[in-house]
Amino acid sequence: MQISKRLTSILGGGSDGWGVFLRARQMIADGTPVTELTIGEHDIRTAAPILQDMHRAALGGHTGYAAISGTTTLRDTVARRVQDRTGVKTTRDNVVITPGGQSALFAAHAAATNPGDTALFIDPYYATYPGTIRGVSAIPKAIPAHAKDAFQPQGDEIAAAAPGAKSLLINSPNNPTGVVYTRPTLDAIAQVCKDNALWLISDEVYDTQVWNGTHISPRALPDMADKTLVVGSMSKSHAMTGSRCGWIIGPEDAVEHLTNLATHTTYGVPGYIQDAAEFALNQGPAFEEDIAAPFKRRRVLAQDIIAQQNAVSLVPADGAMYLMLDIRSTGMSGEDFAYALLDTHHIAVMPGESFGTAAAGHIRVAMTIEDSAFAQALKTLCTFAESRAQ
Amino acid sequence: MQISKRLTSILGGGSDGWGVFLRARQMIADGTPVTELTIGEHDIRTAAPILQDMHRAALGGHTGYAAISGTTTLRDTVARRVQDRTGVKTTRDNVVITPGGQSALFAAHAAATNPGDTALFIDPYYATYPGTIRGVSAIPKAIPAHAKDAFQPQGDEIAAAAPGAKSLLINSPNNPTGVVYTRPTLDAIAQVCKDNALWLISDEVYDTQVWNGTHISPRALPDMADKTLVVGSMSKSHAMTGSRCGWIIGPEDAVEHLTNLATHTTYGVPGYIQDAAEFALNQGPAFEEDIAAPFKRRRVLAQDIIAQQNAVSLVPADGAMYLMLDIRSTGMSGEDFAYALLDTHHIAVMPGESFGTAAAGHIRVAMTIEDSAFAQALKTLCTFAESRAQ
Repeated sequence: MQISKRLTSILGGGSDGWGVFLRARQMIADGTPVTELTIGEHDIRTAAPILQDMHRAALGGHTGYAAISGTTTLRDTVARRVQDRTGVKTTRDNVVITPGGQSALFAAHAAATNPGDTALFIDPYYATYPGTIRGVSAIPKAIPAHAKDAFQPQGDEIAAAAPGAKSLLINSPNNPTGVVYTRPTLDAIAQVCKDNALWLISDEVYDTQVWNGTHISPRALPDMADKTLVVGSMSKSHAMTGSRCGWIIGPEDAVEHLTNLATHTTYGVPGYIQDAAEFALNQGPAFEEDIAAPFKRRRVLAQDIIAQQNAVSLVPADGAMYLMLDIRSTGMSGEDFAYALLDTHHIAVMPGESFGTAAAGHIRVAMTIEDSAFAQALKTLCTFAESRAQ
Repeated sequence: MQISKRLTSILGGGSDGWGVFLRARQMIADGTPVTELTIGEHDIRTAAPILQDMHRAALGGHTGYAAISGTTTLRDTVARRVQDRTGVKTTRDNVVITPGGQSALFAAHAAATNPGDTALFIDPYYATYPGTIRGVSAIPKAIPAHAKDAFQPQGDEIAAAAPGAKSLLINSPNNPTGVVYTRPTLDAIAQVCKDNALWLISDEVYDTQVWNGTHISPRALPDMADKTLVVGSMSKSHAMTGSRCGWIIGPEDAVEHLTNLATHTTYGVPGYIQDAAEFALNQGPAFEEDIAAPFKRRRVLAQDIIAQQNAVSLVPADGAMYLMLDIRSTGMSGEDFAYALLDTHHIAVMPGESFGTAAAGHIRVAMTIEDSAFAQALKTLCTFAESRAQ
């Protein structure tokens, strides 16, 4: 039986650049110890008090269908949080709760595009972006952000791609580069969106992981609140990746339509998970800083190690749980470098080529293992690069 | 800013027939006690042992990203269950776990259709069916099942609608009618699917609620396993509605593509919920019979009450948690009857017209309140109908 082209083409064909990752997994399965610097997930579990609160809510009876747009109290809590952090007036009517950030990305593109429309995104990009756009039968169009610009996308390049497109997806703090978009970058992006009536879909799931500078939500820029759909999530900020709880912040009419979509796709998020998310958000900033602290610490470790050699250079690592390393001095592609590092030293990193074409000659290192093992692996990586440097 | 036609048209325009439901909710909010016979949800909560197991799994660390297609053990458990119940060879490679049955319905239609394709469904229908089809930018086409045929759909009518369509969605045991499709009905449906290369999307979420006859999964019919996508769920069978855990059973290649879709839509189901679902399934048939028992009991109560009068007649109530009552002897539409019953007796039922056009002159009664209140409300309803009978 024939499966829809929508699904058979969702991966876009060609190599997806995950070969290194899969080889590492196979090595582990075969009994070889591998240092994995590939995973965008904390090396801690969800905190017990959050799970206790979830259990309390479940035993208390919050096990039936929950309101499809989210519980009133969680929507209020998220709205207050967004308003406090951005200064933009936000009420529960601007919030729809989704089962995780990925679900929010999908829903936002479903709201912004019809089949056949063009949806823009920035390269390098998180692995699911083009497939998410294909999943709503829209056409993904990548706009490169260049190493020479420290991976800050340029307004003129976005403007050149914008005519006829319906949306632009950005992600700051950025996976995979660790870059935080500057105010000039975001101003230029906002201007293109206004000039071309583009929806700006702003993936801000790393907004509690900023090590240098300030996270600016583009929804807070002039005249952008009515054209921005912000994707948020509990995954990274509260180490709740598996709980699948996120949200979209947007104009009221968009939220109403997104609720209708939720009725026909996910039918809401478990009530006890929403209660636990509310409890977690109410722990306040100190809790979130604790969750982010390991990455903050490891970034400093990495900066020190990288400063001691010249073969590898670090893209400004201002946010998120990743480092993007420029290994072009070796003359190798990111993919060749990653395979060689895995085979010779059993250290797994992601080739920059896994994230599009713009990060070729780079590798992404996730700061998601314990400090001393992390530092040791990074030293080995640098030594390896020095041995290959031309 | 413009929201996609995909979303703005998802409800299909026109009255959605939920006015009675909303008026009842408003009356309750205003302090008027209303007997609600509208809700497709158990009057019990999820059993504590299931929640305890979930908590154990969460505290045990199953809080990170779970495998996107579902945990191996849950997929094995579901596969074994399906094989045991249907006799069709089923392995984990035939199973993708989804966040609930609605999510499975959406994904199945995404797999079966491309934008602009026609997707068939049977009227009367569960409220989300046409919107689910519109949500994947396909075109919903209703095929009536008639009161004169006891709401068993007829092969010739499906065959007449089938040319050019890509899928047919059926639901047995049926919401809203309480009808269980017979073997001849399912044979006719299977024949049409084979003749027209239609995917059969079989929503079997009520398969543990059968009061008379036998539930037959059409995947078990000759040559149907490779063209059937079965939608299943923990919601109704285990009173886990709010936990959003369901699945699709299908051919291996479809499951592979559906897993790719899940990567780009939901990113899997919380691991601790999957563990709890596995625990619940392992409680065995006695547990499921306990969950179904109240509806089984209330159906008998209802049959007795309805046998004592002539104004209201009962569509064969062979499964699911609903009764479909024929009130055409009153000369009223289902909607007029429901409004009048609500206003005069504060009893809320769903008009047949809420579920399409084929159940006009009927009302749907959910058997989801405590036995004596249920019996009393049904007696009042019958007396009311007698007072209006022509």
